[in-house]
Amino acid sequence: MWEAELREQVLAANLAIVDAGLVILQFGNVSAFDRDRGVLAIKPSGVPYPALRADDLPLVDVETGAVIEGRLRPSSDTPTHVVLYRAFPSVGGVVHTHSPQAVAWAQARRPIPCFGTTHADHYRGDVPVTRTLSAEEIAGEYETRTGDAIVEAIAAAGGDALETPGVLVACHGPFAWGRDAADAVDHAIALEAVAGMALHTLSLQPTAGPIDAALHVRHFTRKHGAGAYYGQPR
Amino acid sequence: MWEAELREQVLAANLAIVDAGLVILQFGNVSAFDRDRGVLAIKPSGVPYPALRADDLPLVDVETGAVIEGRLRPSSDTPTHVVLYRAFPSVGGVVHTHSPQAVAWAQARRPIPCFGTTHADHYRGDVPVTRTLSAEEIAGEYETRTGDAIVEAIAAAGGDALETPGVLVACHGPFAWGRDAADAVDHAIALEAVAGMALHTLSLQPTAGPIDAALHVRHFTRKHGAGAYYGQPR
Amino acid sequence: MWEAELREQVLAANLAIVDAGLVILQFGNVSAFDRDRGVLAIKPSGVPYPALRADDLPLVDVETGAVIEGRLRPSSDTPTHVVLYRAFPSVGGVVHTHSPQAVAWAQARRPIPCFGTTHADHYRGDVPVTRTLSAEEIAGEYETRTGDAIVEAIAAAGGDALETPGVLVACHGPFAWGRDAADAVDHAIALEAVAGMALHTLSLQPTAGPIDAALHVRHFTRKHGAGAYYGQPR
Amino acid sequence: MWEAELREQVLAANLAIVDAGLVILQFGNVSAFDRDRGVLAIKPSGVPYPALRADDLPLVDVETGAVIEGRLRPSSDTPTHVVLYRAFPSVGGVVHTHSPQAVAWAQARRPIPCFGTTHADHYRGDVPVTRTLSAEEIAGEYETRTGDAIVEAIAAAGGDALETPGVLVACHGPFAWGRDAADAVDHAIALEAVAGMALHTLSLQPTAGPIDAALHVRHFTRKHGAGAYYGQPR
Repeated sequence: MWEAELREQVLAANLAIVDAGLVILQFGNVSAFDRDRGVLAIKPSGVPYPALRADDLPLVDVETGAVIEGRLRPSSDTPTHVVLYRAFPSVGGVVHTHSPQAVAWAQARRPIPCFGTTHADHYRGDVPVTRTLSAEEIAGEYETRTGDAIVEAIAAAGGDALETPGVLVACHGPFAWGRDAADAVDHAIALEAVAGMALHTLSLQPTAGPIDAALHVRHFTRKHGAGAYYGQPR
Repeated sequence: MWEAELREQVLAANLAIVDAGLVILQFGNVSAFDRDRGVLAIKPSGVPYPALRADDLPLVDVETGAVIEGRLRPSSDTPTHVVLYRAFPSVGGVVHTHSPQAVAWAQARRPIPCFGTTHADHYRGDVPVTRTLSAEEIAGEYETRTGDAIVEAIAAAGGDALETPGVLVACHGPFAWGRDAADAVDHAIALEAVAGMALHTLSLQPTAGPIDAALHVRHFTRKHGAGAYYGQPR
Repeated sequence: MWEAELREQVLAANLAIVDAGLVILQFGNVSAFDRDRGVLAIKPSGVPYPALRADDLPLVDVETGAVIEGRLRPSSDTPTHVVLYRAFPSVGGVVHTHSPQAVAWAQARRPIPCFGTTHADHYRGDVPVTRTLSAEEIAGEYETRTGDAIVEAIAAAGGDALETPGVLVACHGPFAWGRDAADAVDHAIALEAVAGMALHTLSLQPTAGPIDAALHVRHFTRKHGAGAYYGQPR
Repeated sequence: MWEAELREQVLAANLAIVDAGLVILQFGNVSAFDRDRGVLAIKPSGVPYPALRADDLPLVDVETGAVIEGRLRPSSDTPTHVVLYRAFPSVGGVVHTHSPQAVAWAQARRPIPCFGTTHADHYRGDVPVTRTLSAEEIAGEYETRTGDAIVEAIAAAGGDALETPGVLVACHGPFAWGRDAADAVDHAIALEAVAGMALHTLSLQPTAGPIDAALHVRHFTRKHGAGAYYGQPR
């Protein structure tokens, strides 16, 4: 039963962002995408986390955006997730939270510069911030346009979604992603940590600049790509 | 037994603000109002949360302000709650805390501008701050005058208590409310989160201004009013 | 067995400051004083909290400063506690912690102004900071001189230890006290909360001044003195 | 079985830094060194903490740097640990974390001045920050060069590793150490606490200077050296 497996993966990831302290109330949502079948599972809208059951998770056809199974309405941010899965072939999980330190950067409309190796371990460059949407975009298919703005920001950052596994949606908050839902959760946790470290770095050193490119590249390539030597051989 | 139900609701909400980290020691209190019977239940004054029992919760007549059942003295802030239930017909629960980030804004006597969608999801406008009371008001029925100042602040913010479900009492701390006690607790949690995000936003961007009106309205109306599409149909 | 009761009270209070998040590692210590017998019980020096047993707690004669029972060396801060019990007849419990936000004020050598009612509920005035000690005082009976500096600071604040139930030792950290050890723990928790709120208030409003005297007095006297109406009648 | 004991010690220390809140995800690693046998045990690279078993911990020959037992790849930071054990004869445990407040100072490339007694209890002087590495050093044996930079920083601080039991690696984060792994964990916890206190001290007093030398020496020697009187006699 691939549906049951997909839902269990998404349920576990939704509970993981609560356990990690990224989410309070009903803020936030996680989805995972079965690319072979073209179907995602996502948190239903406005359901309290403690009450979530795997069977509650709606399944959505990513080509049409329609719910194909499930009696509950999917997250209102579903169209954003759909855009990301369509645009990023390497992505299998997406997390959206209102984690407070990443939100602060999003609300300040500032990309996070790479101040250290925690950041360099995860991002090839800055953590980008999206452009603001026009009043027309907001009045129309707002959540889809939000997805488009994320895709634009990743394109401007080089285009590889796994080399920039998260973004700050201006005046809103972070979206992060990964190969699967668990990987996306790790990126959401790392983004909140990086945002907090950067916030305090600027408090200590308001003129802090990014680290040397050599150090940035070294740390990024310790963990990513052909020469990676962090972790265990797969 | 409507009294038992009302008390259980209020007990659960008082414990919830402790669990959510909004309250330490004996700071804070929650009440709920049975509008048909004109009676509220509220935390007794100065009783430690772990020792609270539903039977301990005093019942107060909102018309007279008198305790009608219960051997314990009600919260010293009871007159403030009474004013709010009289003034706001849509409100069935009130929460007062000294949650630290909302208190910081209250002590700075600054309203919280809408810097992002977390705020816009909950408030039609700013989170208002009350005017300071005169020495005469403080010397007299201080808690009642505090309630009056809250009502004035909501009137200035448009007058719909559910569109501005909380306020910062100047030099004191937050009051939040909702349709019932559980809803009021959610608003108290959201207010503390919004206060913290806004604090850090200003640290990153001291000249930050509010978000575009279009984005504010879109998010507010995703969750409130006839066109709301967040959450499940009721 | 008054010794066993005194030790149990002190053990519980030492564990309470860990549970409240005021203490990590072996930072901090709590004592209680049996004034009729002239004996205090205090945490032994450098013993990890999880390993503490009531029988481990040394008993100290407050007149002589000598250990009268117990095989473990008392906290190195014991002479400071002794000075406070001698100077403040109303005090039965003393807490010392390195709770981080109170330490920040102590290290900044700034008294905490009364920015709001959380502060006013606990302190008749500012939270004072002690003068720095001279090199001679530090080289001699350092811990006794620290106690003397605290007593001086309370004298300058009006002299009533229960109206100023804590102090910031310059470049060191907070001491708090109360009628008994549990009351002292409450004051240590409140002091850390007040310190954090004041820190963030200044971040939002660097020129913030203290609240009106009328509001300060009203809140303090709601909880203290003949006209108090907070809490339950005793 | 000295191997089993060494591994158990290292496993417990790796779990302790998670429990202490210093580590999220797979950030951080702890090792311990059996100096008689010339062998260290260390966390394997990229293994989630909840999945760690004592048998998983690789054993590394500190003279050659080679793994002598264990099927898993050791932490990518192992060469840094090796340099420290070679350079510091008194050290038996090393901890590396990305604890957020210490990272902020590392990213700001500022040594932590001694603002108070919490710092003075642990460090004879400042918490040093390493020099940045050259592009050549980064491109080559990066982790070994990181160790060299730490050794240089300790030499500049007086050369006694137990009098300066931690350092901030510029643009990276803290390394701390001690007589054994448990002692190193205590120093990592203390460093994060000291970093946070110092951060908030500067927020309250941007021109804060270090404490008097007399107070610094008194606190350091209360806990260290022949005249120490903190803790229990050994």
